[in-house]
Amino acid sequence: MERLLRKCHIRNQLVRECMAECLGVYVLILFGCGAVAQVTTTEDKKGQYLSINLGWALGVTFGVFVSRGVSGAHLNPAVSLSLCVLGRHPWLKLPFYVFFQVLGAFLAAATVGLQYYDAIQTYSGGVLTVTGPTATAGIFSTYPADYLSVWGGVVDQVIGTAALLLCVLTLGDRRNNPLPDGAQPVLVGAAVLVIGIAMGSNSGYALNPARDFGPRLFTYIAGWGVDVFKAGSGWWWVPIVAPCVGALLGTLIYELMIEVHHPPTASELQTSCLEVTEGKMGLELGGPECVKPA
Amino acid sequence: MERLLRKCHIRNQLVRECMAECLGVYVLILFGCGAVAQVTTTEDKKGQYLSINLGWALGVTFGVFVSRGVSGAHLNPAVSLSLCVLGRHPWLKLPFYVFFQVLGAFLAAATVGLQYYDAIQTYSGGVLTVTGPTATAGIFSTYPADYLSVWGGVVDQVIGTAALLLCVLTLGDRRNNPLPDGAQPVLVGAAVLVIGIAMGSNSGYALNPARDFGPRLFTYIAGWGVDVFKAGSGWWWVPIVAPCVGALLGTLIYELMIEVHHPPTASELQTSCLEVTEGKMGLELGGPECVKPA
Amino acid sequence: MERLLRKCHIRNQLVRECMAECLGVYVLILFGCGAVAQVTTTEDKKGQYLSINLGWALGVTFGVFVSRGVSGAHLNPAVSLSLCVLGRHPWLKLPFYVFFQVLGAFLAAATVGLQYYDAIQTYSGGVLTVTGPTATAGIFSTYPADYLSVWGGVVDQVIGTAALLLCVLTLGDRRNNPLPDGAQPVLVGAAVLVIGIAMGSNSGYALNPARDFGPRLFTYIAGWGVDVFKAGSGWWWVPIVAPCVGALLGTLIYELMIEVHHPPTASELQTSCLEVTEGKMGLELGGPECVKPA
Amino acid sequence: MERLLRKCHIRNQLVRECMAECLGVYVLILFGCGAVAQVTTTEDKKGQYLSINLGWALGVTFGVFVSRGVSGAHLNPAVSLSLCVLGRHPWLKLPFYVFFQVLGAFLAAATVGLQYYDAIQTYSGGVLTVTGPTATAGIFSTYPADYLSVWGGVVDQVIGTAALLLCVLTLGDRRNNPLPDGAQPVLVGAAVLVIGIAMGSNSGYALNPARDFGPRLFTYIAGWGVDVFKAGSGWWWVPIVAPCVGALLGTLIYELMIEVHHPPTASELQTSCLEVTEGKMGLELGGPECVKPA
Repeated sequence: MERLLRKCHIRNQLVRECMAECLGVYVLILFGCGAVAQVTTTEDKKGQYLSINLGWALGVTFGVFVSRGVSGAHLNPAVSLSLCVLGRHPWLKLPFYVFFQVLGAFLAAATVGLQYYDAIQTYSGGVLTVTGPTATAGIFSTYPADYLSVWGGVVDQVIGTAALLLCVLTLGDRRNNPLPDGAQPVLVGAAVLVIGIAMGSNSGYALNPARDFGPRLFTYIAGWGVDVFKAGSGWWWVPIVAPCVGALLGTLIYELMIEVHHPPTASELQTSCLEVTEGKMGLELGGPECVKPA
Repeated sequence: MERLLRKCHIRNQLVRECMAECLGVYVLILFGCGAVAQVTTTEDKKGQYLSINLGWALGVTFGVFVSRGVSGAHLNPAVSLSLCVLGRHPWLKLPFYVFFQVLGAFLAAATVGLQYYDAIQTYSGGVLTVTGPTATAGIFSTYPADYLSVWGGVVDQVIGTAALLLCVLTLGDRRNNPLPDGAQPVLVGAAVLVIGIAMGSNSGYALNPARDFGPRLFTYIAGWGVDVFKAGSGWWWVPIVAPCVGALLGTLIYELMIEVHHPPTASELQTSCLEVTEGKMGLELGGPECVKPA
Repeated sequence: MERLLRKCHIRNQLVRECMAECLGVYVLILFGCGAVAQVTTTEDKKGQYLSINLGWALGVTFGVFVSRGVSGAHLNPAVSLSLCVLGRHPWLKLPFYVFFQVLGAFLAAATVGLQYYDAIQTYSGGVLTVTGPTATAGIFSTYPADYLSVWGGVVDQVIGTAALLLCVLTLGDRRNNPLPDGAQPVLVGAAVLVIGIAMGSNSGYALNPARDFGPRLFTYIAGWGVDVFKAGSGWWWVPIVAPCVGALLGTLIYELMIEVHHPPTASELQTSCLEVTEGKMGLELGGPECVKPA
Repeated sequence: MERLLRKCHIRNQLVRECMAECLGVYVLILFGCGAVAQVTTTEDKKGQYLSINLGWALGVTFGVFVSRGVSGAHLNPAVSLSLCVLGRHPWLKLPFYVFFQVLGAFLAAATVGLQYYDAIQTYSGGVLTVTGPTATAGIFSTYPADYLSVWGGVVDQVIGTAALLLCVLTLGDRRNNPLPDGAQPVLVGAAVLVIGIAMGSNSGYALNPARDFGPRLFTYIAGWGVDVFKAGSGWWWVPIVAPCVGALLGTLIYELMIEVHHPPTASELQTSCLEVTEGKMGLELGGPECVKPA
């Protein structure tokens, strides 16, 4: 069996990275949307808002674990974009990463839809709605609270994603925080946990265009219909655009207030290779873009 | 005392491994079923669904801690089977592992039954039932939700166990995630936590034939009677068969999307010993099957 | 200031250990009883049973952190007794350890009584009772559930403490689990968390004679009166005697099923010093009883 | 972009430290007050008291992560004061640290006010009040429970902050607890979690003059008016003064019962540099005040 599997060995780095991003986001959404599905369909009897927060947090943690050694565990188009802007990730890979992130999210939403098929049918009485007392579209993608204005929603998503990037960049900044192997995925999950606890009620803390758009596409196709794009005064574009703005803002704040002021290290002056990869979330040693001299 | 104990020293590796698997599963079930017993008999006053999730998660964590240095902490026939299929565990040991896993689960269920004897008697009015408002069989083994079809249950258990194996294999894949000593048991517990949070409401996330069948056997003998096999349209075989399928599916997905594509390392070409043991959940150094040259 | 403090330097090892045990148990009870006080006096509005579980768990964690480098963080007469029986702690120190453990628990109970004075007065209407709807004695020490027989309580405490020792010995067994510095206090806390989640509802998981008797003594003196010894058919002796029996049982099970069967290591044959200290909960390097040759 | 950022490089150590303290406290308050805002404005539907505890705990954790490598992560004037008294931090830096801590708290409160603008308006019906059924000032700073006397509040804050310092000093005392990199921020957060669980109900566990005064100033300016200083019989000075007293008390207890009695190490006799920095919370290697000989 081991030998059979070995025949499937793929050497192409980009293909490997795309598969890792896809599986990483798949795991993230499988656990995150699964937690929402469980709480929604059991009407808070087998879980509450805190368990949704934990579902997303641990979803991120295991998504990062699955993919960090291969692709650096971006798992989020807004994170990929920020790293490209910072010059720590090649622009050329960006569309591939984004496509496979969205694909992973779509497939995971489909899996959750399959696993909770009976539960959703029973809970909703067989009518898949986006709003109303037995709405189930919120299991898959985010919708704003009734009171929230569109601008309030944009501000909410910008602040939330900026906070996420602040945390992620801190955890990846080795001159500030030299962390042991395996700590980063857990701590990135903890950042998502606290954002869900502190910034979740306005519009469901998407913070991630792929996390929101992939499942929304699934609900559009799977029977919830065009309402998934119309609801919340056409809310769907906010969790795509605002996280990108927020990610750049958070990156800028962390860089300008902390990272650029670190005194240069000896090794930094010699090799520019380490520098390129150090900001990547889950990458520990031997990152893909960085060939080490023997 | 220390000297007295030392006289009981057993050298046989298989006996040691079987005792470790038995005690590991015992601890798992003692904490897991204990948490369900506490929530059930206090009617959610001293715990809720989240504490049941935590009970199983930490039960797994301490079960792994108890046994990982000796047997590699399978604690689950479906995990043992997957490792045999992958060629990382000898087929010959499989029946021994499975028997002692089930035995540990049975003994732990008996212990929980003893510890909660007064509580169960009071809660159920002395009538041990499998279904109905004061049913107590669900403390020990899993039963499907009313709305769930048998096929829905099979799908649920296959997806859940596949997700478990995805997480477990990621955590054991050192080329993807080099983890510090002691991190794996906690993170395997975290995987069980998030599965309970995201995939627990349909049929109680057994994910493990021993976890479900051992306690079911106890309830059959201890007074709940033949209903434990009849309930849920004869549900009992699902948490035995479906986890095995799911474990193989999850293994296949992780291997095909991530592990087989890792570039070969220098050490890998030299020694095949490391390779044999690296996939084992809790085994860190000096695994039992692997004699290191001095 | 630093210089002033240095004048208070005490060299006597036993005095240092007793102070560490006293402060360690103080921290344990301060957080544990504090959590119960908060949940009781706010009638579950600012916390629930899970937060009580977390209070005791993190109380143990920080109690171990405070004292492990000095005394090895027993924090529990039943643990000290087990280590004496195993020959890993001198019998002569036992009475000193036990006295200062109880003293720390008493002082912490007094501190909680002071901090929650206004809250307890308001909640109880100024009448300090051991039973009844506004009973407050349960903030400090444990009382059995109404349904529990005395023998059921003994069994509950024996099983609970055996489970605790199983976990603690596993975490301290380096041939089974080589853990990084700082992991043990957190994991011992996690063991207390899961015991509280799985075995807390019958009689409040004292598991520790000092944890229960110190605060009970405080309530006896501070106004709750002789009822604290009479309630629960004279329950008070159970959390003193049963944990000692349970600790020995748990020790026996772990030793006979796992630890004595480890193959002897090279270093073990040479030095008996490491062996003496390795079973101690929080002791990492340079334990007090073990003088290393320079 | 990376090059552009590098032009903003600031070499002045004090400026860097002040920015780090400011951003660290900003993150702390953003998550902490955000969690209170979410629970308050959703009326416990998207969070409960435990999630507020987690918000503050993880807020502290990420606040420490953001600033530890630069400023040592005091994040609290009472902590800065204690370290000055102990001689581990220069008195001259104290006013700068305190000012930027309060500034960070003020800015974070403003951010939370912006992010929850729609939610607060809807919840409070547009009337910003300090007391009453739809009071929202408690989102930002602490107010005592109705039953609490001023002296009870002082005692509460003194005990709480003493407990915090006990934990923080233990975690920073390497002769007691040699911790791996990255463990301290998480464990300091855990200390805040348990204090919130065990000592939160009386007056909201401010424990930190900056955490309380910065947001109070924001509410004073932003529309809640002078009531924020009048409420609770002029409560506002208690979370400023009492934490300072408590921090000194906790420091004294830990030093006198544990730290001063450690046997001196060889390295300690040689270099006084290590000694100066070891007590700092987040500082691992190459602390700012300590120039290492090459």
